[in-house]
Formats: sequence, C-alpha cells, structure tokens
Amino acid sequence: MIDVYAFATPNSIKVPVALEELGLEYVLHAVNVRKGEQKSAEFIALNPNGKVPVLVDSDTASDKLVLTESAAILIYLAEKTGRLLPASGPARARVFEQLFFHASGLGPAFGQAGFFQRQASEPQPLAIQRFSAEASRSLKMLDSVLASRPFVAGEDFSIADIAHFGWLWRREFAGVDLAEAPNVARWFDEMAARPAVQRAIERVNALAPL
Amino acid sequence: MIDVYAFATPNSIKVPVALEELGLEYVLHAVNVRKGEQKSAEFIALNPNGKVPVLVDSDTASDKLVLTESAAILIYLAEKTGRLLPASGPARARVFEQLFFHASGLGPAFGQAGFFQRQASEPQPLAIQRFSAEASRSLKMLDSVLASRPFVAGEDFSIADIAHFGWLWRREFAGVDLAEAPNVARWFDEMAARPAVQRAIERVNALAPL
Repeated sequence: MIDVYAFATPNSIKVPVALEELGLEYVLHAVNVRKGEQKSAEFIALNPNGKVPVLVDSDTASDKLVLTESAAILIYLAEKTGRLLPASGPARARVFEQLFFHASGLGPAFGQAGFFQRQASEPQPLAIQRFSAEASRSLKMLDSVLASRPFVAGEDFSIADIAHFGWLWRREFAGVDLAEAPNVARWFDEMAARPAVQRAIERVNALAPL
Repeated sequence: MIDVYAFATPNSIKVPVALEELGLEYVLHAVNVRKGEQKSAEFIALNPNGKVPVLVDSDTASDKLVLTESAAILIYLAEKTGRLLPASGPARARVFEQLFFHASGLGPAFGQAGFFQRQASEPQPLAIQRFSAEASRSLKMLDSVLASRPFVAGEDFSIADIAHFGWLWRREFAGVDLAEAPNVARWFDEMAARPAVQRAIERVNALAPL
C-alpha cells in the first residue's frame, strides 16, 4: 500500500504524476495548505519539516518507509520500478542534473517570485525584481535545453520531466508565461496531454474544496 | 582525467571534498566569482547556467562528461566508485532526501539570507526577516535530524554530509551560528576534522588570491 499526503501544489503534483505513469496504486490524502494543515501536530509527526508531499510505502522488504522531498520520492519510485531513470551513463547523470536544477534553481525562483509579487505583507521591490528576473532566466535556461532535446534530460521521458512539470503547471503564481519560451511551451503541451498527467491533476484538484 | 572548475564557495567545496574522500585525482581550475568569471563567455560554454562547480570527466566509457549541479556531481562520483551512497533500501532514500533538503531548502535559505543581509543595494526588511527565519528554521531541522543519527542520512558518512557541509562551512555569510544547534556543531567539528575535508578546503582556498 502506498499513501500520499499532498495538495494541488507544484511539489505535490509530481508524486501522483509519477505513480500514474508507473501504474502504481495509491491512496491520496488531502493536506489543505490553504488552511495551514501542513503545520498541524498530526502532519508534523509525519514530516517535521511541515511540507507536502509525503510518501508512505508499506510495500517494502523491511518496515514501512516514510519519505519527504518530492524529488527524493521520484527517485525512490523510479528505482522501485526500474523505470523513468536510466540505469547508468551520461543519460542518468543528466536526469540528476535536471532534478537539482529544478530543486535548487527554477523551483525556488518561481516560488519566491510568486511570494513577493502576491503574498508579501509589504512591497519589497528589489526582492520582486530579483526573483522575477531569476524565474525568467531559469525559464530561458530550460528553453535552451529543450531546443536540443525532446525531453528535459535527453531522448526519453524521465522523472526530471515530472519534476519540472510541477512548477511549470503552476507558473501563473510566479507571473511566468511561455510566450518567450517556445520550446518549453511545446514540451508543456506534450506533458499536459499525457493521460497519466491528466489523471494526476484530476485527483489532486479533487482534494481542494471549491 | 577529472577536471573541476570551482572557487571557495559553498557549492564548489562539495566536489573537492568528495574527490578527496574517494581518493580520486583531479585538476582544480579557478573560476573567480568575485570577478564574475562564472559569467565569462569561456565559462558559459562549459555551463550555460553560469554557476560553479562544473566537473569534466574524461575517464568514461564513452565521450567525456561535462556535468553541473553540485549534488548531481556528488551522486555521479558516488556511483562511479560505489561508495558514499548505499546501494538500496531506506538508507539510500535518506541520502536523497537530505540531498534535496539541502538543495531546495537549507541552501537557498542560507544564500538568500546572506544576500539580503549583506549585498542588496537597498534594505528589504521583510526579505531579510523571511530568509533569516528560514535559515534558522532549516538549521533547527538539521539539528533535530542529527540528534538521532551520527550522520545526516543515518549511521554512515555519505554524500549527504558533504552536501550539507558546503553551506555550514560558509554559514557566516548567512548570519548563522551554531550556538543553538549543538548537534550540528558536533557534526560540523567531526566533518572539519576529516583529513579529506581539510585537503579540499586547503585546495579551494588556494584558488582565491589574498
């Protein structure tokens, strides 16, 4: 049994997308971040860092595994099934390179750009400028990568595509559009057309009350 | 032949530490980020993202590999040698969890805290408060992890320790001290006492002119 604690967030969506792509069954539990449920005592017991998503895998050789950090969960699921992550060589290294470019670069830039544009209690013009510029620069980096490859890490669809999809799906929060990133736009449309991606989006959207 | 392009930065130091721990020979090339050399045309040809470190490995089965993103380089070196990363199971998942907690959480918080405290052209009080608080919270998270384990991902020294060492080594930039993080202080002292870590620090410090 696989349990996923998540909401309709850029990082959460990655895990249901991977599970749907891999054909693994899972139970999805809502953690309503709009109500701050990720800071509740019950959730903190699961993830002391107070962040979604969390994966709980009871189908393991030893004790059940409670795992946080969306990209670490993607690697875990890829290695559990032997899919979506090349076993060796440069193709494997490229997947990790893109996972960390997303986790340390594009993701934080999009997140902080959105925060300072929309949620800060006082205007911080330099911070808005800094993170909006970095979000735009990161998008152009990804666009140049996708100019020479069908998928973000090479010739094949991988967990690195799933990682980048999270924040590109929620790019409006960061004030990012794809008008000047035609290669990202092409890739995003292909991603959004995948049946597994559509099923995952439908399931996480159903977690949020209207 | 392994070439490393780096400077005395939080992310750069990880690669020489790993190479020294693994006993691999390498040539270290200075990229003086104080002079902006990471944005030079020559360096951009190596890493379009304009960031150190970069690893160039000519000792591969196929073409030489040019790899960016410090944590992706750590994984590559661990898998090349079969060391510092458990081969399977929960112990392996914990290493990835900590690598991404560093890359997406602690590292960006330390970096932005230092930027807004020290380098912003105008005061941004809310941004200073936001990132200083997040740096402090991340440090406390790491401290609670190290309260129950000798190393950041479990019983054994791993590439996750090398990753966290980068920003803890440069914590003064972020205005972070270890007075309220006794477990991190204990771990940091052990890390700093490792001969491989000392050799790596000596080599990267020698890159910076006095």
